[in-house]
Amino acid sequence: MAQLKEIGKNKMFGGFNRRFQHPSSSCGCDMNFSVYFPPAADHGKVPVLYWLSGLTCTDENFIQKSGAQRVAAAEGVAIVCPDTSPRGLGVEGESDSWDFGAGFYLNATQEKWKKWRMYDYCTKELPELLRSSFDQLDTKNASIFGHSMGGHGALTIFLKNPDKYKSVSAFAPIANPVNCPWGQKAFSGYLGDDKSLWEEYDASLLSRKYKGHPTKILIDQGDDDKFYKEKQLLPQNIVESELLRVELHLRSGYDHSYFFIASFVEDHIKMHARALKS
Amino acid sequence: MAQLKEIGKNKMFGGFNRRFQHPSSSCGCDMNFSVYFPPAADHGKVPVLYWLSGLTCTDENFIQKSGAQRVAAAEGVAIVCPDTSPRGLGVEGESDSWDFGAGFYLNATQEKWKKWRMYDYCTKELPELLRSSFDQLDTKNASIFGHSMGGHGALTIFLKNPDKYKSVSAFAPIANPVNCPWGQKAFSGYLGDDKSLWEEYDASLLSRKYKGHPTKILIDQGDDDKFYKEKQLLPQNIVESELLRVELHLRSGYDHSYFFIASFVEDHIKMHARALKS
Repeated sequence: MAQLKEIGKNKMFGGFNRRFQHPSSSCGCDMNFSVYFPPAADHGKVPVLYWLSGLTCTDENFIQKSGAQRVAAAEGVAIVCPDTSPRGLGVEGESDSWDFGAGFYLNATQEKWKKWRMYDYCTKELPELLRSSFDQLDTKNASIFGHSMGGHGALTIFLKNPDKYKSVSAFAPIANPVNCPWGQKAFSGYLGDDKSLWEEYDASLLSRKYKGHPTKILIDQGDDDKFYKEKQLLPQNIVESELLRVELHLRSGYDHSYFFIASFVEDHIKMHARALKS
Repeated sequence: MAQLKEIGKNKMFGGFNRRFQHPSSSCGCDMNFSVYFPPAADHGKVPVLYWLSGLTCTDENFIQKSGAQRVAAAEGVAIVCPDTSPRGLGVEGESDSWDFGAGFYLNATQEKWKKWRMYDYCTKELPELLRSSFDQLDTKNASIFGHSMGGHGALTIFLKNPDKYKSVSAFAPIANPVNCPWGQKAFSGYLGDDKSLWEEYDASLLSRKYKGHPTKILIDQGDDDKFYKEKQLLPQNIVESELLRVELHLRSGYDHSYFFIASFVEDHIKMHARALKS
């Protein structure tokens, strides 16, 4: 834990929200992440549920606004929230638009964005850091979920690494980025023009060739979500197969906000807890 | 509702967080407030539970961070969150310190702060505005709670108006402001040197002469709350009597944050719901 600095700690539902900072080799800058340790972590190992946030978010939004800790405490699951992007690297244009500059949970191939390696950060560096730093986390027993850009991250990371995660779910995910303006803007910038690279980070395309353990993807989507209506999300484009079921709930009147996430987060955590304990 | 402008609306737990702005006669400026309407408000009148926030907060903190809507939805209670202070009046010094300038839920008597009339705003203007604007709110059936400066507000408003509220509770309230630095700074500024005026806004002093309906004050207090340790809060100074019981829970390891509030808000809302439905 030599490199790991604790920068926040608050008790909640008998456990603790703790926030850390560390130098990241993947991203070449200091990165923050937050963990909710449930009370069960005081006397044994607990499974790990990763949460990936959306555009404009940090590691703190889910911790402050989702209400997830109540359920995580009851289920005995830790929740790990990485930040969404490298920060402060001073790359020209990194902060010019609200919908570009966040990491999109990929490894950029374009020279200008070479530090944008959130895929490696989330799938390798952070899990290894958690394993070596926290005896109370059973990092081999993990699941993953997220929202919007983080829903895209959770789905693609799961579909590419089913051996590493027991289950996956998403709220209003960017589920087919090669076919939406947000995804096209991000992928052009980070990955360039080679469309075969784009396919490696598109949940709908990855779903067609899934060969992992039989699983169900749980997705909640508000039907009053303006980004859903603008066809940025396209959660209906994920393809089912014998190995991959999709349970998509279209929720009447809900929008894209954390108020929507909070309303349904209990269902998601309980589903992950079942998978993590089975 | 001519004067009332809706400035936000998000569905949550089957009901709606709605945010409004209106010109306030008490404060002489535009004021914002937020209301959570539970699903039951779609087909009948629901009781009203006022939430008063603390220093540095607005009408939005509780709505975004407490997780209260889950319980309010289940119990069929609306939650009304006023802002904590007049804003933008341009009075010299109103924004110079983080612990002075907020309204403290009193009617200022000093000329400079004459627009600081949050007591009238919360006990008269806002309830009347709600009554005349929202048929679905049973404004005669009301309770009140709050946090820190808002805990002070809830306790003093209840103790001075037991006919208007069925029940009261508080998180980490400033319970004896005449004996703490925050209270002395605020009361000197807003009320001047006349200590008899100060007594009218001190929950511990008001508790000694309570003559309303028999009731219990529920208080949660974290023992790792730095303001508790600095003796800004003094919740133990409220005096019990035959009419007034105090149920004070000192919570081990909890601090002054919304993470603490979220951990125990269910207990408070259920207590108020019982009083409001009895």
